[in-house]
Amino acid sequence: MFVLGIDPGLSRCGYGLVQRHGSRLTAGAGGVITTDPDTALPQRLQLMFEELRALVRESGPDVVVVERVFFQTNVRTAMATGQAGGVALLAAAEAGCEVAQYTANEVKQAVVGFGGASKEQVQHMVAAVLDLGRPPSPPDVADALALAVCHLSAEPLRTAIAAGEGRRP
Amino acid sequence: MFVLGIDPGLSRCGYGLVQRHGSRLTAGAGGVITTDPDTALPQRLQLMFEELRALVRESGPDVVVVERVFFQTNVRTAMATGQAGGVALLAAAEAGCEVAQYTANEVKQAVVGFGGASKEQVQHMVAAVLDLGRPPSPPDVADALALAVCHLSAEPLRTAIAAGEGRRP
Repeated sequence: MFVLGIDPGLSRCGYGLVQRHGSRLTAGAGGVITTDPDTALPQRLQLMFEELRALVRESGPDVVVVERVFFQTNVRTAMATGQAGGVALLAAAEAGCEVAQYTANEVKQAVVGFGGASKEQVQHMVAAVLDLGRPPSPPDVADALALAVCHLSAEPLRTAIAAGEGRRP
Repeated sequence: MFVLGIDPGLSRCGYGLVQRHGSRLTAGAGGVITTDPDTALPQRLQLMFEELRALVRESGPDVVVVERVFFQTNVRTAMATGQAGGVALLAAAEAGCEVAQYTANEVKQAVVGFGGASKEQVQHMVAAVLDLGRPPSPPDVADALALAVCHLSAEPLRTAIAAGEGRRP
């Protein structure tokens, strides 16, 4: 199973691919898509959409995981994150991918073990789980990989529940 | 000149077309694109994008005007508005249209004459300016038409400024 994590943002959008072979998780390509704040907003969104659409098409993930943002310090930031997140969800939907969303707290809970974990703790755990030797850089990539790891960590449970439901009379 | 106003929202997205012949403004098609809250978010955004893309292609506006949202009662609403607004801006950019954005206060200032005008005052002024006989219904259409009227009301000034700049030595 191949999962693409996306940490949406209008100026910086992190992405990272994680593959699962049995119980082993390995990291694939990761990076950051950036748009220039001096460019007009519609063109920034168009650029972001085209880059994400190409990324989804080229990497062909089974699932695209996009962070679900509930908290922002101000409405202006929330709007920009919403715009970038909307475009990311659209790129995934257009490619026909399954989409999952988790909040930052759910990711911390799944990756580190508690929802109040620091960014550094998440980065170190991502490096450990994916056997990377050191935390992925820039941090946006670590956040994106953490989203993918979060989804995959819950996968055995989802499969078991689905199988159990299938056996019900 | 043909202007398409879009009042973005994930559940309800109002749109309205306004054409200018000389100093006369006339309303074209208007309506509301809705998505079902029970449908998954990526599919709602995809549906919204496809409807807006078709609308922009079929109506062929010179300018698409999308409300710029600065204030929301909570971050959750801001995220949904941002997602829908992002998809609207993307549809306009993909069609190669010029895009303009105004805040609700700027629209009220342009249409009614002061930024603190009520929704009802905006609806009545839109009806009067566009010679509609009565306020457009549902109110989402009036809001979208008001965005287009706001843009067109500033057009003579923009043209004069551009001409003045062209005449500078």
